[in-house]
Amino acid sequence: MFKILRVDMTSQTVAWQDVPAEYQGLGGRGLTSAIVAKEVDPTCSPIGPLNKLVIAPGLLGGTNCANSGRVSVGAKSPLTGGIKEANSGGQAGQYLAKLGVAAIVVEGQAPADKLFKLVLGKDKAEIKAADHLKGLGNYATVEKLAETYGSKVGYCSIGQAGEYKLTGASVAFTDQELRPTRHAGRGGLGAVMGSKGLKAIVIDPTHGSAAPLADPEAFKKAAKRFAKALAEHPVTSGGLPAYGTDILINILNEAGGLPTRNFSSGRFEGAEKVSGETLNEVTIKRGGNPTHGCMGGCVIRCSGIYHDAKGEYVSKWPEYETVWAWGPNCGIDDLDAIARIDRLCDDFGVDTIEIGCAMAVAMEGGLLKFGDVAGAEKILTEVGKGTPLGRILGSGTGAMGHVFGVRRVPVVKNQSLPAYDPRAVKGIGVTYATSPMGADHTAGYSVTANILSVGGKVDPLKAAGQVELSRGLQAATAAIDTAGLCLFVAFAVLDIPDAFAAIVDMLNAKYGLKLTGDDVGKLGGQILGMEKDFNVRAGLNNADDRLPDFFKFEKLPPHGVVFDVPDSELDKTFIF
Amino acid sequence: MFKILRVDMTSQTVAWQDVPAEYQGLGGRGLTSAIVAKEVDPTCSPIGPLNKLVIAPGLLGGTNCANSGRVSVGAKSPLTGGIKEANSGGQAGQYLAKLGVAAIVVEGQAPADKLFKLVLGKDKAEIKAADHLKGLGNYATVEKLAETYGSKVGYCSIGQAGEYKLTGASVAFTDQELRPTRHAGRGGLGAVMGSKGLKAIVIDPTHGSAAPLADPEAFKKAAKRFAKALAEHPVTSGGLPAYGTDILINILNEAGGLPTRNFSSGRFEGAEKVSGETLNEVTIKRGGNPTHGCMGGCVIRCSGIYHDAKGEYVSKWPEYETVWAWGPNCGIDDLDAIARIDRLCDDFGVDTIEIGCAMAVAMEGGLLKFGDVAGAEKILTEVGKGTPLGRILGSGTGAMGHVFGVRRVPVVKNQSLPAYDPRAVKGIGVTYATSPMGADHTAGYSVTANILSVGGKVDPLKAAGQVELSRGLQAATAAIDTAGLCLFVAFAVLDIPDAFAAIVDMLNAKYGLKLTGDDVGKLGGQILGMEKDFNVRAGLNNADDRLPDFFKFEKLPPHGVVFDVPDSELDKTFIF
Repeated sequence: MFKILRVDMTSQTVAWQDVPAEYQGLGGRGLTSAIVAKEVDPTCSPIGPLNKLVIAPGLLGGTNCANSGRVSVGAKSPLTGGIKEANSGGQAGQYLAKLGVAAIVVEGQAPADKLFKLVLGKDKAEIKAADHLKGLGNYATVEKLAETYGSKVGYCSIGQAGEYKLTGASVAFTDQELRPTRHAGRGGLGAVMGSKGLKAIVIDPTHGSAAPLADPEAFKKAAKRFAKALAEHPVTSGGLPAYGTDILINILNEAGGLPTRNFSSGRFEGAEKVSGETLNEVTIKRGGNPTHGCMGGCVIRCSGIYHDAKGEYVSKWPEYETVWAWGPNCGIDDLDAIARIDRLCDDFGVDTIEIGCAMAVAMEGGLLKFGDVAGAEKILTEVGKGTPLGRILGSGTGAMGHVFGVRRVPVVKNQSLPAYDPRAVKGIGVTYATSPMGADHTAGYSVTANILSVGGKVDPLKAAGQVELSRGLQAATAAIDTAGLCLFVAFAVLDIPDAFAAIVDMLNAKYGLKLTGDDVGKLGGQILGMEKDFNVRAGLNNADDRLPDFFKFEKLPPHGVVFDVPDSELDKTFIF
Repeated sequence: MFKILRVDMTSQTVAWQDVPAEYQGLGGRGLTSAIVAKEVDPTCSPIGPLNKLVIAPGLLGGTNCANSGRVSVGAKSPLTGGIKEANSGGQAGQYLAKLGVAAIVVEGQAPADKLFKLVLGKDKAEIKAADHLKGLGNYATVEKLAETYGSKVGYCSIGQAGEYKLTGASVAFTDQELRPTRHAGRGGLGAVMGSKGLKAIVIDPTHGSAAPLADPEAFKKAAKRFAKALAEHPVTSGGLPAYGTDILINILNEAGGLPTRNFSSGRFEGAEKVSGETLNEVTIKRGGNPTHGCMGGCVIRCSGIYHDAKGEYVSKWPEYETVWAWGPNCGIDDLDAIARIDRLCDDFGVDTIEIGCAMAVAMEGGLLKFGDVAGAEKILTEVGKGTPLGRILGSGTGAMGHVFGVRRVPVVKNQSLPAYDPRAVKGIGVTYATSPMGADHTAGYSVTANILSVGGKVDPLKAAGQVELSRGLQAATAAIDTAGLCLFVAFAVLDIPDAFAAIVDMLNAKYGLKLTGDDVGKLGGQILGMEKDFNVRAGLNNADDRLPDFFKFEKLPPHGVVFDVPDSELDKTFIF
């Protein structure tokens, strides 16, 4: 029987709660958003006692369904002021599900300057003092915790950025090798965790068990069909395992949609040097690992291990978004430096996209020059130290633009745009503009049909068809995030009809339901509606569903395009 | 014939335009808001080329009506993201009106790192390079300009803060002695001016003439009645001339509504040391001037001149809001330091309220201790230097709270609350929450009936009647700001019925109209409606009309009150 764990940081007490009827049938993003939408005062301070931090595995968590171990983190976002869900790989999703935890809801606020940890095991949960972890990065935090709790557990933690309550702060989760490299990165959720006084969560799955299945045989069959689809699709079986997500550098550069030097061009002359192909080559040469799963049960394994020239571990493979944010977007073509930066970001606990974009805005603002990799690394280290400049950087792109008076600030709802220029990939522009999460490529990855010819083909340079494309993808994504599936399964789902059918069959076999594909699709739309409604109550309206003005009048080389999806069309995105 | 001067900073050209029908009958705030609401894309970047900076004298500007020389500055605010009007004393209002300028509309954007000045005289306007003024504070800017243009002109300028495009930057206007001590302070309008590349405006009234009057005799009679009312009311004839606005320190402290140490108490133990009474005493002793008009034609003369212990000029008398922001709100009781701070703020060109509140938030965030006056002065000097910390401070209270992860951040629409705690002066809380300008006491000064027994009496500690009080005052204020009258005439207007009748009579006598008192009242409501509409189109909704959550659950000593005007009541404020 799944339960909700209520953690009251004001009194440092915990309580188990049966899942109320209104939250049943939900997991992952669906559950975090439902709890935030229902229980959090939308006008509250995101770093005050009235906000709640919700951590939930997906509906398929705890099963042997491939790639079903994502964990969702939700709250009112200190970055966007709206609702937020960010999900992550790592071990936590599967472990929580195996412990029968539907969600952890962290409420209230500990006394200032006190830090605590939550220690969670089979049928037990305790809050303990953790002042000894104060000021530690995620790597040192996990190392310290592992002295007590060992290596057979999952850790969730915040670095210095979360303690400082910076709006670029992430929530870190350990991977299979106990490295805090998987992050619920976007929207400053680490600041919410920090504001609660919660430094870390220890999740011990010992004596936990696989999630119960209503029809084990049917589940097994469906799970096999699903895994087969993932093994068949060229992206999930070929491109991603070999080159990681960084495979996209050359593809986007070719398409003229690789945002370069703070979104002033769509092509970067140094792209090849930071491409997935180069990453693969360097990794093999140095004895790293090009094909590594970020969580147990992953069959795609797009996360590699990056070694330095001496063959020593630096970081997990930086994702495409990270390589882009600190590479082309900052005019930097040094993969080693980017891997070091990735490590620092993971350690301080900041969103690599948000902070990388902020660095590019700092370059635009004249604080340092585009391409100044030493300068960028130096300023990044200040995040950990909490200097004024470090705090500005750690507060993200909007804050950097605000404080340094920069006009070209690529944010929507104060969250930085990711690695696809919305002028040359217009479908993703619609997602950036309209997602209740702020600019977020994972909220509706229109790059599929715009660039990758997955799930059809829609001309990326034209406005026509983009709203429809984004609408469908945003709803499907909300459902995938609710199931706890890795978003990359979408490549197979979009092209192989049986992959989606298998997901529906697994949900039915697990919960003894008779959902149709339509029901699952509708669920996504309902979740989006709930999230939009929260945002309206938090003070956002249609005028917040817009890209920054410069995308509408600055032409992007090489195609010379502007973002021209009309506002009136954008406002139809959520009319289902 | 009044004209609009269009200043295109992109091409550095000017053009005169007849006032279009839709803008006729408007001046001051009514005109700046009408132009911004009609011509500015509400979703544009406030520091980009699509924003417009509008500077307009009031409807009664250029006449001999007492206290009619206020000048309004309007734009989309980089601080609030909504519409903004801030008005100022000084000589510009009268001079512009005498030159027949209905409004200056600054549009477009000069090339980055180029600075210009606008030189305005009778029937002539020129844009000239002003790179030699780069990096200068307002005092040095005026001094330099005066070498060329002399002392018989008015200057409008920005300091370093405006050049840096900080969202706490003000637009400065010179007083009768050519001191840049009068500021359109709120909402970061200096950043808009800076973003245009406009460092200064020189306004030479030579050969200008008094505004034409449709019925000079009737005007003269009405103006006399108006001046008589100002001379009769105890506030405008006694309290303000003797003690300045700082007279309010002891009054608010007594009432338990003087926000102390970042709004954590309503009483300050050091109030007496920074009170208007002390200010008056020190000023007389040191040979300063306790009774000085901030603009020609002022009969109230609440602005004194502050001298240091050696009898040398430091600054104009700091206003009550300034004394409060840097005094009680920062736990500081040193009047000399506050005067030096006032001078620095005027010189850098920042809003003393916004930046003082930001300093208190920095103290709350642990950057320095409450009461650390040396620390506060030191950090303030960094604003002029443009260090990271200086830029955070100069970006205002919201930015300081954001970057330093502070939970108790007293802002509405990202603009800091002024000098009246909304829990103990609930009528002003309604104004803070609902004004389209963000938290602003001047938008509807409910302190009158709440504390001063002017215009009736409404219990400040109770929710009842506050919405009605604020509604009426906000509408009346919009009308007063449109007339170009100093807000302090409201004391007389609220208590002496003939004062308001005289204003209506002056408007009719000047323009040959037959307005009734009702018409003038309605005008205020219409302006508010126009401003609210802009804000909705800019992305604000009712949920933005709220005080920060801590005012609802933290009890304010000594009365132990919270802000308890229901949200549903707040939402009725603009139902006329």
